[in-house]
Amino acid sequence: MNPVEIILKKRNGEILSAAEISWLVNSYLKGSVTDYQMSAWLMAVYFQGLVSEEIQALTECYINSGKRIDFPAEIVTADKHSTGGVGDKISLMLAPIAAACGLYVPMISGRGLGHTGGTLDKLDSIPGFQTQLSLQRIKELTLQHGLSMVGQSEELVPADKKIYALRDVTATVESPGLITASIMSKKIAEGAKHLVIDLKVGSGAFMPTINRAKELAEALIKTGNAFGQKVTVVLTNMNAPLGTHIGNALEVIEALEYLKGNYLPDTQEITETLTSEMLLSARLAANKEQALNMIRDAVSTGKALHKFEEMIIAQGGEPEVCFDYGKFPAAKYKLPIFAQEDGYVQSIDSRSIGYALVGIKAGRMQVSDEIDYGAGAVLYPKVGTLINKNDEIGTLYTSDREAGEQAIRRILASYKLSPDPVTAEELILGKLTLQDFSA
Amino acid sequence: MNPVEIILKKRNGEILSAAEISWLVNSYLKGSVTDYQMSAWLMAVYFQGLVSEEIQALTECYINSGKRIDFPAEIVTADKHSTGGVGDKISLMLAPIAAACGLYVPMISGRGLGHTGGTLDKLDSIPGFQTQLSLQRIKELTLQHGLSMVGQSEELVPADKKIYALRDVTATVESPGLITASIMSKKIAEGAKHLVIDLKVGSGAFMPTINRAKELAEALIKTGNAFGQKVTVVLTNMNAPLGTHIGNALEVIEALEYLKGNYLPDTQEITETLTSEMLLSARLAANKEQALNMIRDAVSTGKALHKFEEMIIAQGGEPEVCFDYGKFPAAKYKLPIFAQEDGYVQSIDSRSIGYALVGIKAGRMQVSDEIDYGAGAVLYPKVGTLINKNDEIGTLYTSDREAGEQAIRRILASYKLSPDPVTAEELILGKLTLQDFSA
Repeated sequence: MNPVEIILKKRNGEILSAAEISWLVNSYLKGSVTDYQMSAWLMAVYFQGLVSEEIQALTECYINSGKRIDFPAEIVTADKHSTGGVGDKISLMLAPIAAACGLYVPMISGRGLGHTGGTLDKLDSIPGFQTQLSLQRIKELTLQHGLSMVGQSEELVPADKKIYALRDVTATVESPGLITASIMSKKIAEGAKHLVIDLKVGSGAFMPTINRAKELAEALIKTGNAFGQKVTVVLTNMNAPLGTHIGNALEVIEALEYLKGNYLPDTQEITETLTSEMLLSARLAANKEQALNMIRDAVSTGKALHKFEEMIIAQGGEPEVCFDYGKFPAAKYKLPIFAQEDGYVQSIDSRSIGYALVGIKAGRMQVSDEIDYGAGAVLYPKVGTLINKNDEIGTLYTSDREAGEQAIRRILASYKLSPDPVTAEELILGKLTLQDFSA
Repeated sequence: MNPVEIILKKRNGEILSAAEISWLVNSYLKGSVTDYQMSAWLMAVYFQGLVSEEIQALTECYINSGKRIDFPAEIVTADKHSTGGVGDKISLMLAPIAAACGLYVPMISGRGLGHTGGTLDKLDSIPGFQTQLSLQRIKELTLQHGLSMVGQSEELVPADKKIYALRDVTATVESPGLITASIMSKKIAEGAKHLVIDLKVGSGAFMPTINRAKELAEALIKTGNAFGQKVTVVLTNMNAPLGTHIGNALEVIEALEYLKGNYLPDTQEITETLTSEMLLSARLAANKEQALNMIRDAVSTGKALHKFEEMIIAQGGEPEVCFDYGKFPAAKYKLPIFAQEDGYVQSIDSRSIGYALVGIKAGRMQVSDEIDYGAGAVLYPKVGTLINKNDEIGTLYTSDREAGEQAIRRILASYKLSPDPVTAEELILGKLTLQDFSA
């Protein structure tokens, strides 16, 4: 085989065989196919797409490039993946709740880039907490505590790691086929038998329309199915930040408050929906009502909070953070945010808020950028909220006062107000499983 | 500026500014934009195309990356470019004829790759002939002798050289915008004021349809015009090899026979059409009839042959080859080719014949492959020719008897025969100049 012929076939819209995809990826890992040939192929894939069989072949290559975790057959493993949103700290509640309900959650997460944060950065704000663990250790911790929350190790899908780094610098990230192989290879190799995917839809999200989201959902579900993983995709509205806290330590604090029973309507709806889909998929609950009862019990009895604490200890962190938020890294300044005008919140530009917070180092633009774990914002208004001029609508936490004031201006500009009352949009837009795509 | 944003813009179908294109190309030459980013951009260009302004900006970058030849205003320089075909040795007749008619031809040619040969390889079959000359020397020789036939020097459009090498190994050659910038930058930088382009159309050619060919012609003509070069595109039929001889030394021999007045109908029609367009463009002839008389006189008086001989001497070659073909490198074996069946030739698969001859090293698949300058074939049948079984329809020249026999089988299979008489197709399909594309 020869790389130019394989690039040419894809460029011309032909379907590649599993052998061709495997040869290409493995030759790339060995170095006999170059970065520039791989990037040309990735761009051809961006334009011509990949059919189900090609996505499965690519996913298989990614998985086979590293090790995988095999849990005993009787252990019911499950995980969640989110395509990413501003203020999305759902994993921090969902994983301990699911573990408290009897699931085993070997959750492998990523770092934030651009306007969205990453679960791994949020966890890094817990002093001492280790996220770089061997696969053997992840397996042990998951079996022992019901969950582990870690980063992608060198042992797991190294082909995806290498190719993702190349996609990031060649404008070839946004391809449903490549995204599917990247997400699914990790979630399959980590050993999750059930997977719930929170697929964000909306102007600020990864998938701008329901139809595009459904295409991606189909690829995700069918790929999981090909590897024996049951996948449920929940389509959620991403037209506003989730919860009130945005920023790494701030989001862990909000998650801890949730686990103590201090619910907010939006994070509650998403957390309960996604966790109940995990329980239903794994048949630990017979129906939605039972699932919700299990989830609320896990919080009200303190079991979920205890699981979180247990995980912090197991991964070397300081469990005191659960009760003493002063143990978290803190930003130097706490600036009140005052509304500049009256009106009902009509829409919130989450992406713009995300970027505003990158300006105070709550996030990063490049992988190498430093993060201020204490920086971020607490923002109360939701779509429909009535704001009066000079109301204190939130707080900005920053270590750079000037950058902070600029961030406040960008945040205020992200709220579009209306003189007339506004009705909030639905948060959950739909749910898709294999049967939705069966002939 | 940042390479990812520029790739993204082109990927999304946006038009790049001249400043963006210039930044990208110059950063690539300096090494701050990587091979893998350039190849991703090239593939995005393959899919999204380049508009006239972008092609001109790219052509300008290519030209400005090196030096250019400036001929005095009173010197009428002209050149020809062909998109390449099997047995296409037209340059070898056209350049000395044009020089004999008073034009100055600073012809810069390329090497062959795949099924088509390159003028430079053909010239290399002349013992001692030098094709790597400085731009200063090319200018001197052109002014002194009316022509020089050389290869692309390091001084001329180095950006194109580097980017072409990348396109070749990333399946991004076949893009009208990139092809235009590549061809035109060389032909503008070499100082040709008039350019005639032989654009091959047909199943075996670079441009499969007349419409695709017209799009490319428009880009070529408008780009030349933007840099003060008058461009005429002649669309020619490429459904059969040109002339009878295919192979490097064999084609020089056929060209020498032509210059001695031994015309073949197809090479005569193409040579005379292209050369007369050069003379008409440069106003050295008032009309087609006068141009044809000048061209035929140049041959019948021996002036054109003398120009060829003069050039060989000027570039260090052995002029004896003009009269003693035994001075050319020769293949070991001369194998007769016998027809296997009766019929009228309905079509000839030139591409397949080209690849058959690569098998005996008359051409190359990769830039690094060695060439047997004496290898090749002489093939007499044309579309419409009546062949009888066991007729000797040609000869194969090879240094590897076994590969030669395989090549003969492939050549024979390239002729499709019909029991009924077949009419040959027109060779010249049309002509396009700037006025064909003016609003």
